[in-house]
Amino acid sequence: MRDLQAYANIVNARLEAIPEVVPEGRFAVGEMPWLLSESMRYSLSAGGKRLRPAMLLAAVEMLGGSIGDALDYACAVEMIHTYSLIHDDLPGMDNDTLRRGRPTNHVVFGEGQAILAGDGLLNCAFETMLKAAADRPDRALDCLLAMREIATGAGVTGMIAGQVMDLYCEANNIGDVNALQYIQRNKTACMFIYPLRAAARLCEAGEEALRALTDYGRAFGLLFQATDDLLDVTGDQENMGKTLGKDAESGKLTCVSAYGVEGTRALVERLHREALCALEPFGERAAFFAALVDSMVDRTK
Amino acid sequence: MRDLQAYANIVNARLEAIPEVVPEGRFAVGEMPWLLSESMRYSLSAGGKRLRPAMLLAAVEMLGGSIGDALDYACAVEMIHTYSLIHDDLPGMDNDTLRRGRPTNHVVFGEGQAILAGDGLLNCAFETMLKAAADRPDRALDCLLAMREIATGAGVTGMIAGQVMDLYCEANNIGDVNALQYIQRNKTACMFIYPLRAAARLCEAGEEALRALTDYGRAFGLLFQATDDLLDVTGDQENMGKTLGKDAESGKLTCVSAYGVEGTRALVERLHREALCALEPFGERAAFFAALVDSMVDRTK
Repeated sequence: MRDLQAYANIVNARLEAIPEVVPEGRFAVGEMPWLLSESMRYSLSAGGKRLRPAMLLAAVEMLGGSIGDALDYACAVEMIHTYSLIHDDLPGMDNDTLRRGRPTNHVVFGEGQAILAGDGLLNCAFETMLKAAADRPDRALDCLLAMREIATGAGVTGMIAGQVMDLYCEANNIGDVNALQYIQRNKTACMFIYPLRAAARLCEAGEEALRALTDYGRAFGLLFQATDDLLDVTGDQENMGKTLGKDAESGKLTCVSAYGVEGTRALVERLHREALCALEPFGERAAFFAALVDSMVDRTK
Repeated sequence: MRDLQAYANIVNARLEAIPEVVPEGRFAVGEMPWLLSESMRYSLSAGGKRLRPAMLLAAVEMLGGSIGDALDYACAVEMIHTYSLIHDDLPGMDNDTLRRGRPTNHVVFGEGQAILAGDGLLNCAFETMLKAAADRPDRALDCLLAMREIATGAGVTGMIAGQVMDLYCEANNIGDVNALQYIQRNKTACMFIYPLRAAARLCEAGEEALRALTDYGRAFGLLFQATDDLLDVTGDQENMGKTLGKDAESGKLTCVSAYGVEGTRALVERLHREALCALEPFGERAAFFAALVDSMVDRTK
């Protein structure tokens, strides 16, 4: 069984090799200007854990599919995640100047180029998947359905809807639990649920697997957010420098502000059970996914 | 033969009906918040000529395809065009407060929501095409190849590359003819070339049609830009209120600043010939496209 780092390494190697992300000639038509490539690469190589693409690849292996066929979809998921961070950090949104200890994209390249780097990564995610799909005409429908899952998760009834609500609630001091749940399910959980569903599509998995991965992805996404919120206030060393610390001070809506520390601990426990329960149909083959939630919960103990 | 307005009406009717663009419940998971829908619709319904989607539909009819099968791809092209305008107008880019006589998206909804409305429209373009493609599993490969053309035109070696170069040249006062050509080919012409190529893919047209439509799209796009630049300085009434007027005053790189008025007139004449020449393989069936360039050139006389 591969671990998270092993999958992350596979993703990183492929991201380096995707032609669109490698600098090309400056003024040649049909080639990307070096500046766009550089700004996209700057954020793409900022050292994330590659959690979302790793989970997509792990799901493909669990379902008996080929990692090679799924790799460009995994990279696309990471491009989408990265674009959302670049746009999130902009002065018109969260106005963050640091991410993972490095200056944010707009601080380095300027606001306009950062907007375009984000647009570029989102569009490039689809270019990358469509190229992979066109290279497998025998599997056109599976590829198309996988892409559709990713587009849905990232889209106007998924991640972007969550972002809109998040920004709206912050600007208008709205802090009810319904809003929190809407934001966490859409902004955070959708980008776990739908990449897993894409893996199922690539493997032509049946309805049961699709449902199980959807349930796991939702529980995982909410758990990811709840443990982050919890670690933030319980002062875990590893998290001291994170943006969330700032949020806690600023009174931003989090699981802890909504449910209290004990309430959040109970939520973490419930989501942990739900995630493991969702994995039952896969038995031993789901070891990667079981270990992933176990380790996440362990950090809060 | 339908005219531009007839195609635009078809596009407008369909844009109204696409579920993702119609407001839905506010906090329901899996539904778009009203605010996102409203901000996307605000710019989408701002009264453009629908030139790009109309040309896609006209190409499909010319090639003997079905408008119904192509309609969602046409709408996607308009969504992409609209997102690029919203992001272009942002304070970090051109900082425009008016477009087509109405306040720009960020003036109405705020900068953060405007960034997300743009992201939403770009992602929604792919969601819309992927839904249409999933509804036609018998034509999965054609749909996929059509989507890929549109993604390429809009993407990091197409429109976005042109935007990056445009912003870079303006910020650094770069004004050479190579840069101008790069920007106009990528930023402007690609979003005519690739939607036409998408039409050819949807109709399973051969290499000759693909090449002819590529040549026409390129000539058309450059002609579109050159006539706009020309009308701007020759003071055509219809264009007096346009952004380009501002550009001419600000010393922005245009065809006229690069080639002079007479040089631009000669360029218009050459591109007009090239566009008509590219249509030859289609004979009488290309009447819509011939009329389109003729009327564009007539306006400069």
